[in-house]
Amino acid sequence: MTCIMARSSSVQQVRALYDFSGEPGSAELSINAGEILTVIRDNVGDGWCEGYNQSRQSGLFPAAYVSDIEETSNSTTAANAANTANTAANQQSHQQTYATGDYWDDDWDDDSEIGQTQAYVPPVQQQPSVQSTHTTSSAEYGDNLSMHTVHSVIDKAVPNVPKKNNKFSALVKSGEEGFLLSSKLVIVPELEKVYIEEVESGRFAWASTSESYSCVVTSPKKESKLKGLKSFIVYQLTPTFNNIQVSRRYKHFDWLHERLEEKFCFIPIPPLPDKQISGRYEEQFIEHRRTQLQEFVDYVCRHPVLSRSRVWQHFITCTDEKRWKAGKRQAEKDELLGATYFHAVQCPDTPLDAIKIEFQTDAFARFIQGLDPVVKNFMATATDQAKKHQVLYKREFQKIGQCFTALGQALEVDDGGRLRGGRLNQALKDTGEAYNEIGRLYEEQPKYDWEPLADKFHIYRGIISSFPDVVGIHKNAVQKRKDCERLVSEHKMEASQLRELNHRTDIIARALGAEESHFQTEREIHINQTIKNHLVEQINFYQKIVNKLQEALNSFE
Amino acid sequence: MTCIMARSSSVQQVRALYDFSGEPGSAELSINAGEILTVIRDNVGDGWCEGYNQSRQSGLFPAAYVSDIEETSNSTTAANAANTANTAANQQSHQQTYATGDYWDDDWDDDSEIGQTQAYVPPVQQQPSVQSTHTTSSAEYGDNLSMHTVHSVIDKAVPNVPKKNNKFSALVKSGEEGFLLSSKLVIVPELEKVYIEEVESGRFAWASTSESYSCVVTSPKKESKLKGLKSFIVYQLTPTFNNIQVSRRYKHFDWLHERLEEKFCFIPIPPLPDKQISGRYEEQFIEHRRTQLQEFVDYVCRHPVLSRSRVWQHFITCTDEKRWKAGKRQAEKDELLGATYFHAVQCPDTPLDAIKIEFQTDAFARFIQGLDPVVKNFMATATDQAKKHQVLYKREFQKIGQCFTALGQALEVDDGGRLRGGRLNQALKDTGEAYNEIGRLYEEQPKYDWEPLADKFHIYRGIISSFPDVVGIHKNAVQKRKDCERLVSEHKMEASQLRELNHRTDIIARALGAEESHFQTEREIHINQTIKNHLVEQINFYQKIVNKLQEALNSFE
Repeated sequence: MTCIMARSSSVQQVRALYDFSGEPGSAELSINAGEILTVIRDNVGDGWCEGYNQSRQSGLFPAAYVSDIEETSNSTTAANAANTANTAANQQSHQQTYATGDYWDDDWDDDSEIGQTQAYVPPVQQQPSVQSTHTTSSAEYGDNLSMHTVHSVIDKAVPNVPKKNNKFSALVKSGEEGFLLSSKLVIVPELEKVYIEEVESGRFAWASTSESYSCVVTSPKKESKLKGLKSFIVYQLTPTFNNIQVSRRYKHFDWLHERLEEKFCFIPIPPLPDKQISGRYEEQFIEHRRTQLQEFVDYVCRHPVLSRSRVWQHFITCTDEKRWKAGKRQAEKDELLGATYFHAVQCPDTPLDAIKIEFQTDAFARFIQGLDPVVKNFMATATDQAKKHQVLYKREFQKIGQCFTALGQALEVDDGGRLRGGRLNQALKDTGEAYNEIGRLYEEQPKYDWEPLADKFHIYRGIISSFPDVVGIHKNAVQKRKDCERLVSEHKMEASQLRELNHRTDIIARALGAEESHFQTEREIHINQTIKNHLVEQINFYQKIVNKLQEALNSFE
Repeated sequence: MTCIMARSSSVQQVRALYDFSGEPGSAELSINAGEILTVIRDNVGDGWCEGYNQSRQSGLFPAAYVSDIEETSNSTTAANAANTANTAANQQSHQQTYATGDYWDDDWDDDSEIGQTQAYVPPVQQQPSVQSTHTTSSAEYGDNLSMHTVHSVIDKAVPNVPKKNNKFSALVKSGEEGFLLSSKLVIVPELEKVYIEEVESGRFAWASTSESYSCVVTSPKKESKLKGLKSFIVYQLTPTFNNIQVSRRYKHFDWLHERLEEKFCFIPIPPLPDKQISGRYEEQFIEHRRTQLQEFVDYVCRHPVLSRSRVWQHFITCTDEKRWKAGKRQAEKDELLGATYFHAVQCPDTPLDAIKIEFQTDAFARFIQGLDPVVKNFMATATDQAKKHQVLYKREFQKIGQCFTALGQALEVDDGGRLRGGRLNQALKDTGEAYNEIGRLYEEQPKYDWEPLADKFHIYRGIISSFPDVVGIHKNAVQKRKDCERLVSEHKMEASQLRELNHRTDIIARALGAEESHFQTEREIHINQTIKNHLVEQINFYQKIVNKLQEALNSFE
């Protein structure tokens, strides 16, 4: 089922096994089960292939939805299988939406609040039936399915659509090559421009062009509509620069996140809290999600580029529903995004030392590669510790508590109230209660230490996992420059065109450098702060245990 | 296979299924497979029956070794089955000795140090072959075994001999009834006499007739003999009253314990540390056993009767090997033991209020019954916590430590020695090391808190499990008195004889009361002390964690 990979020079044909509806306005290509596709790039990342259909429409489609051409020589059979499988896929994706809750918060079911237009529909739910009509007629030939095909349909059903990476889609759509080579004039409004300074030799940074601010996420509250049929959580956001509160739901954050990823291909966007269904309305979950959203908001506010972006400003300031919808539509129509947005980057003209930059970029890529498993492991350990405190350790201490309490009670039976015995029994029961309370401390503690640590590392994990894509943009540009240098040496390209390309590659390098610097400053300050906070809370915690035990000890004598 | 129980008035006949070799000099009756036995008492405790054979020899045998007479009507068959099973039993018991190590520390294999005489041979190893000769001739009729018998032989093999309760055997041997009813004059040497005082109305206590002392167990060291072929651990005991050190091995303690149990039927003897084979010579195990032996020694030293007993005095003072052997043989031949030892109890003549005493005894029995599972659970929890600290928690903290260390290392790669980053990385590694050290604290901690607690509760668990037998002696005496009261009312017994029996029952009641009082004082002082010590050590422990974390925190900024 995997897309057999072809080198970029050769051409590979594959057959679509299932219908796939590309998201309108994205780089995705809708494909119909049975049709023949030509692969241009076999592995553009995250399980996507790039190619074109027989009508010469090109775009991205899931590699798992197509098969090497030799595998399915009977196109009717394949179309049939695909059609059957498609039904299964619809059922499966529907089930997944509710059962795992991994992909969409089911808040998405209810879209009426935002507008009547299908402004944004999650891809898995969007399955226009018109696309499969041409295969429906052959449904009665289902009996002709070969054993092989039946087997593959039953066992594997339809593969999951790979996780969408909007940054990548946007990049392909807007075209990195377009930025590097096109002479088209892109007019960038003043407000969209972002500036890079050279803070020291070979070290770049985003220039702060406006005052820094923060924004608090507070008072999550449950609201409902449709006479209580639909309920959801609303978070209040208050930026420090105007002190005006706006209400946003998780789905608004999700929409915003999509926009930011789409627009800023050279900036890793911090991740939102994981989507989760079970216990969604429980107080503890909501409060925890609030702190996770605060982490996201903090990261954006601290970022010199993101914090100034129009879509973000709209998100944290718009209080009027009409204006909200207008701004939302505008953001969705924004064309200054992906690689095109590099036109907005303003930086010095001086050419960079290409070899030095390549060396630095490789070093940074290795750094990120080394950091990735460490941060994942840290995050996993913090989450694991939080759970162990809340369940395992709490139970252990309560078990210990019960032992002391039971001993106090058992000794009491005999003692008939004589003073010394009574004192001992009471002391034993106090000790039991102290251990019980220590159990409760263990249950409560994670929200002060391990959970904030896990939340911070959730952000870092997301940032770190996005960096290879950002580095990849630079690497592609360097490769393109090398190709062009060859062309110039063979007199197939003008030297002036190469100079322009060099300049644009340097813009990409400077943007990467600025983002590297931002990440470095960010992590030094915030890892420092987070771990200090963690240690302070751990010290408080163990000190509380000491105090509880001291109280118990005082009951003796 | 269980001995069908007959009321004491009726007579029940059973058939021996297997050979059983009674321990010479004990109350046990050797039985031969196939022979008919008459049951006198069906359930004398711990799976033993009392009865006599056709030669009118009486004694105890394991209930599981005999069968209700109806079950095995063909005596040849039964004998055959028994013979086959007997071989299996020998193999099985041999295996048990080495495999579980539960019954005998294998120090016992090497007895040459103590003397050439078979002074003490563990019962499971003693299986004189002469007793089974008369059944060997019928071995060739094995094919006649009924399916039922074959099944029982294969499935159940030979049942285990019930756990020997020396106190009980000794009691039966010396005879509680003998003490209650016999007019035989027993001369008690002055040194053997023990005194009971009435400390307040209805409350008795052992009189302290000599100065209290203690005895330290120190410097366990490995010694060897037979040119290093045999090695063993020797513990040094030094009593405070003479400050002269004696050397004792675990097997000497075990021998002593047998003597004490045999002699003092009305005093629960504190248990020795569990026998254990694996890791016997490891430093940690030896040191732990030393502290456990210290607990045993402390309990005996604090006991007004045990601490004065001859066998104990011999054990803690004898330094000369020749005198040691002589004293050892004398102790083994001591006849003033079990119920006979009640003759040594000196107390007031005033008759007790039988109803009040019975009420008190019942209350005490219920108290012990309630305490038993609590102490067992406490002990299990303490052992469990010790193990969790040493393995699970240690691992958890080291895992946390590794997370911090790895983060410090991963961040270092990029930083090229700039100051602030370098400080953060070092702080992260310091934090990692702090958590690592906390892991080591968890590993070491149990020997200061949970292990001493477990050791103390090991003693209490043993004492508590012996008390029902001690209470049983009193209950039997009360029953016997009631029987005799009826006989007197029917003019079948002299009133003077009943008066003597009342007096002797009161001695038993006073001894029980004195032991109850001792246990109460003991536990109030020592549970109090132990738990205070535990809490102090727990406080130290968590305080050390606080300090480690504080050190880590100081590395930041």
